[in-house]
Amino acid sequence: MTSFLPALRDRLGEAGLLTGGDLSAYERDWRKRYPGRALAVARPVSTDEVAAIMRLCHEHRVPIVPQGGNTGLVGGSTPDDSGRQLVLSLTRMKRLREIDAANASLTAEAGCVLADVQAAAAAAGLLFPLSLAAEGSCTLGGNLATNAGGTQVLRYGNARELCLGLEVVTAQGDVWHGLSGLRKDNTGYDLRDLFIGSEGTLGIITAATMKLHPQPRERLTALAACPSIDEAVALLGLARSRAGDALTGFEVMSRAALALVARELPQLRQPLPASPWTVLLELSDAEGAAHAQAVFEGLLEAAAERGLVQDAVIAQNLQQAQDFWHLRESIPLAQAQAGLNIKHDISLPVSSIPPFVAQMDAVLSAYMPGIEVINFGHLGDGNLHYNVQAPAGVAHADFLATHEAAINEQVYDAVQRLGGSISAEHGIGRLKRDELVRRKDPVGLTLMRSIKRALDPLDLLNPGRLL
Amino acid sequence: MTSFLPALRDRLGEAGLLTGGDLSAYERDWRKRYPGRALAVARPVSTDEVAAIMRLCHEHRVPIVPQGGNTGLVGGSTPDDSGRQLVLSLTRMKRLREIDAANASLTAEAGCVLADVQAAAAAAGLLFPLSLAAEGSCTLGGNLATNAGGTQVLRYGNARELCLGLEVVTAQGDVWHGLSGLRKDNTGYDLRDLFIGSEGTLGIITAATMKLHPQPRERLTALAACPSIDEAVALLGLARSRAGDALTGFEVMSRAALALVARELPQLRQPLPASPWTVLLELSDAEGAAHAQAVFEGLLEAAAERGLVQDAVIAQNLQQAQDFWHLRESIPLAQAQAGLNIKHDISLPVSSIPPFVAQMDAVLSAYMPGIEVINFGHLGDGNLHYNVQAPAGVAHADFLATHEAAINEQVYDAVQRLGGSISAEHGIGRLKRDELVRRKDPVGLTLMRSIKRALDPLDLLNPGRLL
Repeated sequence: MTSFLPALRDRLGEAGLLTGGDLSAYERDWRKRYPGRALAVARPVSTDEVAAIMRLCHEHRVPIVPQGGNTGLVGGSTPDDSGRQLVLSLTRMKRLREIDAANASLTAEAGCVLADVQAAAAAAGLLFPLSLAAEGSCTLGGNLATNAGGTQVLRYGNARELCLGLEVVTAQGDVWHGLSGLRKDNTGYDLRDLFIGSEGTLGIITAATMKLHPQPRERLTALAACPSIDEAVALLGLARSRAGDALTGFEVMSRAALALVARELPQLRQPLPASPWTVLLELSDAEGAAHAQAVFEGLLEAAAERGLVQDAVIAQNLQQAQDFWHLRESIPLAQAQAGLNIKHDISLPVSSIPPFVAQMDAVLSAYMPGIEVINFGHLGDGNLHYNVQAPAGVAHADFLATHEAAINEQVYDAVQRLGGSISAEHGIGRLKRDELVRRKDPVGLTLMRSIKRALDPLDLLNPGRLL
Repeated sequence: MTSFLPALRDRLGEAGLLTGGDLSAYERDWRKRYPGRALAVARPVSTDEVAAIMRLCHEHRVPIVPQGGNTGLVGGSTPDDSGRQLVLSLTRMKRLREIDAANASLTAEAGCVLADVQAAAAAAGLLFPLSLAAEGSCTLGGNLATNAGGTQVLRYGNARELCLGLEVVTAQGDVWHGLSGLRKDNTGYDLRDLFIGSEGTLGIITAATMKLHPQPRERLTALAACPSIDEAVALLGLARSRAGDALTGFEVMSRAALALVARELPQLRQPLPASPWTVLLELSDAEGAAHAQAVFEGLLEAAAERGLVQDAVIAQNLQQAQDFWHLRESIPLAQAQAGLNIKHDISLPVSSIPPFVAQMDAVLSAYMPGIEVINFGHLGDGNLHYNVQAPAGVAHADFLATHEAAINEQVYDAVQRLGGSISAEHGIGRLKRDELVRRKDPVGLTLMRSIKRALDPLDLLNPGRLL
């Protein structure tokens, strides 16, 4: 071990290896739940350097924690507190290698910030649709390692669906040259999708070729008030059948979620009167404003006729559209202001969302009268952020300390019963590792462990995360 | 071994195990290139029976060849001639387990015929878009094992993109319960996509949950004449940006391909005069006929103004639309009538298709004057069926015997140089196994072999295929 860091410094130079000073930006996760201590932080600038680091780690048996923008929510990208794990920060690998407009694809290195990838696509007249709250600091490599979701999944899919090919450094320090601009390639096992979502435990993604889409001519946003979650689900079906793929957003906000925003952020205008559920719909239109407006009006009229919608408002300009989205995105902020809460990032078949909401509301109010459920999320993807808050007058920290485990149990039991997932888009990391073992199909777990052993027999890649 | 077949018969009953009589339907591939001889044919009716078969095979070390509709083109689903491989036919497992219209998904067993899955979706008012020539006899399990493509990939993706979850029997005879109606699920490695496209070498798919889409209100088809392949590629970009996701088909046919159809199938009307390239475009419209017609006319006018299109015709009714598609689909038939030819199922980044066509035309006419290239395929996916035929007057069989290897070499070299794939949608099987080893990234091959060893250490699942 004494020769490891000097060898690493030889290979990477001064700028490429941090061993002293304040490393807390690399050692602490965004939610500050997992304070850690790194052996050192390696900051390679090329795939060759990543491969060299991995070979040295392999030779010296040094575990490695790959890290992008370090914006993850499950403790997957920071070291433990042993001081023996090397953080591998990809943030200096941020070259945009190629844009191929005719093929509607681009190739970028893992450390590229998501917003920069979006901007590069836009400069070529195309759309890179992956979009999420951390886009100003999260990186493409991290997006792929965690199969990031966000607000455009309904139409464009997760990071997985946007990826055509990868370049990956293996646990042995070899480079898999799997970059590809191909839409079709049936030459063997799907290694790409195996690395995507593996949270850095199977290999280190150094670059990716991503799909681009045509820029829509117009984006139009509306809010609609629904009498119950059943009508919100029915509205989704109607919107899909009438707007087809133009429907790019379908978010829901419960009455309690918007009431919380009204209390905590009273300066935000709420365009519709309070109703049991408020839906944010977004249409992306290939033709233009007039066409989008006509489709939206037709859809909302038909929905009103069927009693799915009680009230609705279409944004009249870009500012209003942004305000609608801001309302939706301010819910986590309002929650943070209100104090700690018990967070869940769950998914269900869309058809199971109404029974889930009904069952859980009953279970939780029986468990503790006055308990508050802040329920919102990407209904179009079946993904709810189902967060639970203390009743008025109960201290939030005490509530968490006493009830978090029991409430998680109730929520995850219901999710499992209804065919859902305990992690829709945030991943497993350290936060949900034990829960995964308890709840995942045992044969699936065995398969996962076999693959991990086959690709990383020394358990050097992000050990203790995910599996 | 003497106890294997009796044990199997005990478990499956008379109808479930064929050991005598004419088994040629199970032993011979569709193109009759790989005549084989089976130890027996097992025909389970349930996942439990598949698991029991696999456990017996594991115990007795009997290799197994999974088979669906047996319509594959690469020798992947028939036994070798040793008489020692068990064919596992999934065709009796054809239960449609569930349709969930609100979740836009269905769950069906592996032996369901593709056309029956399409019909079940249509009966629920939804679309299952996977569509290919063999749809009347190929099965869902085979479609997934080979990651089937077809004519709707441009908009809806391959079989992979349509799959939400799988049920799989492992090499040890365990059942992975991975069926899922979820759009988002970040709980571990993507086992689903590992099994998809693995050609039966990693596990046996017994059932799948598949995505459904809204039925388009109208489908409209057009033919357009392009002066060169460059204009056809530019037309694709224009069509994408103007029609967005409504563009569901973009097929090309070279002048030689349509001339061959005119010679061999003179009864088929060709609506446009001969031109260097003819494009078939299909729009699927969520709104209706008038809207689709307006989008198409606007697109074709804009294309004509830019010189991308010299002539065009929009189908005036369903019969005409079918005739346009029939023209495209009759090319393989015309080729079969004309005699043997050297087939390639290649893909390229769309931007590399013009240089590929130019380079190969030069190479092949230098190689042998008068050689005929029948070039057609799914340009929207970068997928060409680039078939090469003997010059007039040269016997086809002789031409193949003498020149197939050399011409394959030239074609695959160019494909590789331009970042393409030697198998876009047909897979590897036995036909392209050696070529795969020669041309695939060596680290990628090593990863594939590690995974195969980890999941099927005794090499019982479809041995000698793919890897």
